Amino acid sequence: MPRPRPVSHEEASPEVRQVYDDIKAARGVPDVNNFWKYVANDPATLARTWASLQEVMKPGALDSLTKELLYVAVSVANGCDYCIASHSAAAAKAGMTPAMFNELMAVVGMASETNRLAIGWRIPVDDAFNS
Amino acid sequence: MPRPRPVSHEEASPEVRQVYDDIKAARGVPDVNNFWKYVANDPATLARTWASLQEVMKPGALDSLTKELLYVAVSVANGCDYCIASHSAAAAKAGMTPAMFNELMAVVGMASETNRLAIGWRIPVDDAFNS
Amino acid sequence: MPRPRPVSHEEASPEVRQVYDDIKAARGVPDVNNFWKYVANDPATLARTWASLQEVMKPGALDSLTKELLYVAVSVANGCDYCIASHSAAAAKAGMTPAMFNELMAVVGMASETNRLAIGWRIPVDDAFNS
Amino acid sequence: MPRPRPVSHEEASPEVRQVYDDIKAARGVPDVNNFWKYVANDPATLARTWASLQEVMKPGALDSLTKELLYVAVSVANGCDYCIASHSAAAAKAGMTPAMFNELMAVVGMASETNRLAIGWRIPVDDAFNS
Amino acid sequence: MPRPRPVSHEEASPEVRQVYDDIKAARGVPDVNNFWKYVANDPATLARTWASLQEVMKPGALDSLTKELLYVAVSVANGCDYCIASHSAAAAKAGMTPAMFNELMAVVGMASETNRLAIGWRIPVDDAFNS
Amino acid sequence: MPRPRPVSHEEASPEVRQVYDDIKAARGVPDVNNFWKYVANDPATLARTWASLQEVMKPGALDSLTKELLYVAVSVANGCDYCIASHSAAAAKAGMTPAMFNELMAVVGMASETNRLAIGWRIPVDDAFNS
Repeated sequence: MPRPRPVSHEEASPEVRQVYDDIKAARGVPDVNNFWKYVANDPATLARTWASLQEVMKPGALDSLTKELLYVAVSVANGCDYCIASHSAAAAKAGMTPAMFNELMAVVGMASETNRLAIGWRIPVDDAFNS
Repeated sequence: MPRPRPVSHEEASPEVRQVYDDIKAARGVPDVNNFWKYVANDPATLARTWASLQEVMKPGALDSLTKELLYVAVSVANGCDYCIASHSAAAAKAGMTPAMFNELMAVVGMASETNRLAIGWRIPVDDAFNS
Repeated sequence: MPRPRPVSHEEASPEVRQVYDDIKAARGVPDVNNFWKYVANDPATLARTWASLQEVMKPGALDSLTKELLYVAVSVANGCDYCIASHSAAAAKAGMTPAMFNELMAVVGMASETNRLAIGWRIPVDDAFNS
Repeated sequence: MPRPRPVSHEEASPEVRQVYDDIKAARGVPDVNNFWKYVANDPATLARTWASLQEVMKPGALDSLTKELLYVAVSVANGCDYCIASHSAAAAKAGMTPAMFNELMAVVGMASETNRLAIGWRIPVDDAFNS
Repeated sequence: MPRPRPVSHEEASPEVRQVYDDIKAARGVPDVNNFWKYVANDPATLARTWASLQEVMKPGALDSLTKELLYVAVSVANGCDYCIASHSAAAAKAGMTPAMFNELMAVVGMASETNRLAIGWRIPVDDAFNS
Repeated sequence: MPRPRPVSHEEASPEVRQVYDDIKAARGVPDVNNFWKYVANDPATLARTWASLQEVMKPGALDSLTKELLYVAVSVANGCDYCIASHSAAAAKAGMTPAMFNELMAVVGMASETNRLAIGWRIPVDDAFNS
């Protein structure tokens, strides 16, 4: 298989172009970023992912900034460089300051450390947390 | 090696007992949870981890609730059942409602999905995110 | 330690060259890919890995294509860019079409999402699945 | 936060009950498994996940059995015990024999080994796989 | 698929029994542990894994204790409770003291923390480490 | 958010410069590597991480070489390319030979394989390992 390539606006099917246009309108940007252009090779996943992302990321009990901070943290834990880059940008747009990023990263690091300690020491969950 | 066991308050060295007392005072709880009782088998790590955790989790650019939400999200991504249980409790104490937990989990799930899409499609980072 | 370097056919020991020749013959290719050239720095692991791979990947209850699809999926979940690239090529050679890759990636993404939901919601295994 | 609990059919809202009924009808089962009963605490994620899963797992370029095999493999790589149990059952229903499971697991193990070798040896992707 | 079950010595095929006997003789134990009894459902993987493990774990440039310490550390990072338990026992048999386990766990935790920091801060590898 | 940039010695605050000077003195190097220059964007995490690392990595029940080998192994399991590169260099400085690295990588690969086998076969921990 050749390395996947992005689908440009010009070569996009009407179905894909519709999603591109929706993303550009929703975000007020002149072009969509690479994530969408690559996933567009699979139009069904493109449409489903965009719809799901809008539903999940819209402000609710958590505001947009908090959701983007969580997205960045999970992306770091999962080791996805692309997602760290793109969602750090989205988080900054939603209000994340450099000081917030610093503290987010400190929490991600600390949690990863204590996660391993709890796993390696084979610590049973306290009754109080299971009831 | 026998399975690690918790260090009770009674059998704790003065050094360990001091950390236990600090945790109980800082949190206003009558006893420390299993995490500390197991890590107490290694007094140096116990003391260092408690000091680091206090520094990292104190409110700053991010408030305590946001930090606990991040802690839960990372623990889910890292697959640490103990940490999910204990930090969900801590998050609830800091103000997390069930509706917030629902949305947190939806973001964690969505991020994990798109993380894999970005990795599997081998998507290069946009120049805009690298500059 | 300097960055690991590939072992070329010319500088390879007879033992390593024998494995290179076996791989080239088995696959009908003029040269081995980087994976083998780097692991060749450790001739014992080279020989063992090549022998194991042949045993594991030979058609059996599952055909070669299905095995390569599984290999790609696991490599995405484990975040190994090299392995995604090389085993996507192997899968294509075994018959994977672009439409199959699209669906494979959709499954990997979906599974990663529901994996995290099951872990984060701390869902106990149904009795029916444990008996 | 108390440990999440399942939402029974009786206590389910009409919206949740509708999804339960859809799952039971689609699968021909008398009750839904725990995954759905726990995620039902978040009705929006329940509905979205069920809709997405149906779209992703329906036979297409890959048949249902292959998709379930991939689901199991990813769940093993991600360390989700619940998902291994539930999707092994689904795979068996779709035709997975014990011999197929054996080979699936052998591939997952082998891929995990070579994934780490490629990462640890810092192997660059061959030009042939990048073009 | 029913939950996998262990293969007892009595019900084992001659091929499987031979591996069991080899393991018992090599380790001087009256019975094999669950890992082997479950993997025995797949005799080919049983035989291959036992052969590979002996080759990999035999003392060489690294002694047996160091190899077992590494095995435990990787098992913690990969979140395998079974492997942490069994290889902690093997490490203890090879000479690991409680103080060594403490320090091993401290390193695993610290590495996991700085791994995430390096990933999240998107730190490029220094030229000195790439040459 | 723009991509994080390193903090040079010249632009560093006195607080950061003090840590840089400590690292250079402790390691006998003319400059600090990128890890520190990037984390220096968050002076509190810089100071805490350096202090913790010194405490964790100092020789104790395990010598410096063993600790660095463990650090490399965990970094491979966690997929951190930066950390593999930097700690392989540190391990070599502490005495790791190429033959040791070969065996370390063989153990990491083998453990990752059997970790997945134990998880996928859903193997219960033997009573002997739990008591």
